[in-house]
Amino acid sequence: MTTPIEYVHGYSAHETRRLGDQADTLAALLHSGTAYPAGSRVLEVGCGVGAQTAHLVTASPRAHFTAVDVSADSLAQARARVTAQSPDAQVSWHQANLFELPFPDASFDHVFVCFVLEHLAVPRHALTALRRVLRPGGTLTVIEGDHGSTFFHPDSAYAHAAIDCQVQLQSTAGGNALIGRQLHPLISDAGYENVVVRPRTVYADRSRPTLVNGFTRNTFIAMIESVREDALAAGLMTPSDWARGIADLHRTATADGTFHYTFFKAHAVNPGDAVD
Amino acid sequence: MTTPIEYVHGYSAHETRRLGDQADTLAALLHSGTAYPAGSRVLEVGCGVGAQTAHLVTASPRAHFTAVDVSADSLAQARARVTAQSPDAQVSWHQANLFELPFPDASFDHVFVCFVLEHLAVPRHALTALRRVLRPGGTLTVIEGDHGSTFFHPDSAYAHAAIDCQVQLQSTAGGNALIGRQLHPLISDAGYENVVVRPRTVYADRSRPTLVNGFTRNTFIAMIESVREDALAAGLMTPSDWARGIADLHRTATADGTFHYTFFKAHAVNPGDAVD
Repeated sequence: MTTPIEYVHGYSAHETRRLGDQADTLAALLHSGTAYPAGSRVLEVGCGVGAQTAHLVTASPRAHFTAVDVSADSLAQARARVTAQSPDAQVSWHQANLFELPFPDASFDHVFVCFVLEHLAVPRHALTALRRVLRPGGTLTVIEGDHGSTFFHPDSAYAHAAIDCQVQLQSTAGGNALIGRQLHPLISDAGYENVVVRPRTVYADRSRPTLVNGFTRNTFIAMIESVREDALAAGLMTPSDWARGIADLHRTATADGTFHYTFFKAHAVNPGDAVD
Repeated sequence: MTTPIEYVHGYSAHETRRLGDQADTLAALLHSGTAYPAGSRVLEVGCGVGAQTAHLVTASPRAHFTAVDVSADSLAQARARVTAQSPDAQVSWHQANLFELPFPDASFDHVFVCFVLEHLAVPRHALTALRRVLRPGGTLTVIEGDHGSTFFHPDSAYAHAAIDCQVQLQSTAGGNALIGRQLHPLISDAGYENVVVRPRTVYADRSRPTLVNGFTRNTFIAMIESVREDALAAGLMTPSDWARGIADLHRTATADGTFHYTFFKAHAVNPGDAVD
């Protein structure tokens, strides 16, 4: 989204692939329970390269989607991806800022937000802005991670320090990699009602090789590895400590390792009161 | 269990009540999926005051249970509790050491172990010993927590330090409060097959007042508070830092707080190979 902060995950081709892998592996976990009725008007804000959009249109083939992102390049990739996968999907694409959405009040029945609030300096403002375009009684769905939920076997202070680099860099950029645990108070404070938050936990061990590869290695560790240059440039770790941290993270993806991460999925209703 | 270590949680009346509260609040979470057929022979080791036994006999009213604990006092409480609740339950009570079980080889179809391995210096030895009394093809069910899974809002370094006191004291006593994440390799290494481990996550916010009271306050925070004297005597924290840590934990149980903890439940099969 357009905010005064830098998008910490970057926009490289490698990053695009990583986000695609992540969405595919996690789709069942994150999207279960989310299906919109035929004809309903659904807004996805911060669609990025369409990783989640692709799953949304599959789960709700007869809903009318509006996908918004601030990056024209990401939007083009998202459109190409979703059109190739689901040629009949009803998606309208808009380049726009979350805080200045080009839609009349109460334009949507449902709003879907995934991995967006973590990048915003004041996520409550975004949630409040979204209430304007959501009709009274319409629903909000939010999915976010929380890097503080990460633990693993064998344990390693170096591995935790490497993860903390990502948390610190995202914080310095104005975001919050620990936002998952805050969803309930954040959404409640923004004026939504009937707020329900549920953890969606990824647990990987050798009995789940698809998750070990798809999540532990290719999603989580790849994400941490992607901030190496920034972490070292900021002096957050020494190169040798960093290398040990990454090696220890990979160790958790070997035969006797285990890995745990929790996403949070929130559902809430817009009461339709005046938005302040 | 009889081990060369002290049972870190203690044996006070308050502690008995805490363990009872914990079991009642968590019963649905921990016991779902566990039901034994009529006539099957089920061994529960480390039954303590019967908190889990009470749920086992409710879920499997026609199975034959054998409940073992090293403490005669705990066993008497367990017997009184289960008999009062389920007069028709088929439970045989035995005071015994897990490592010297007074049963012939292959006496049981199923073994159930809850919150026991965390107190053992070498949990793999216990798992190996249990294979002797479990028939080939019989199943093992293990439930353990992992204090490293704890995170909350608002975050607090003092609160984490107070939790770490419990982890350190349990480690000093020869146990492991972080054992949940290790269940898969531990059970596999002990020779069991088809090992499947699933996280069972407790997440509490103000939309779940029963969990906030029953788990966050009366189970988790009460457990941490119970080690105050030992933590201060060991010099692990100053009294004022401890007080702040406990206050910050209670803060997570107020209106805009959230709390997350993960238990792990494992299921495995005894292949019936020679036990080494």
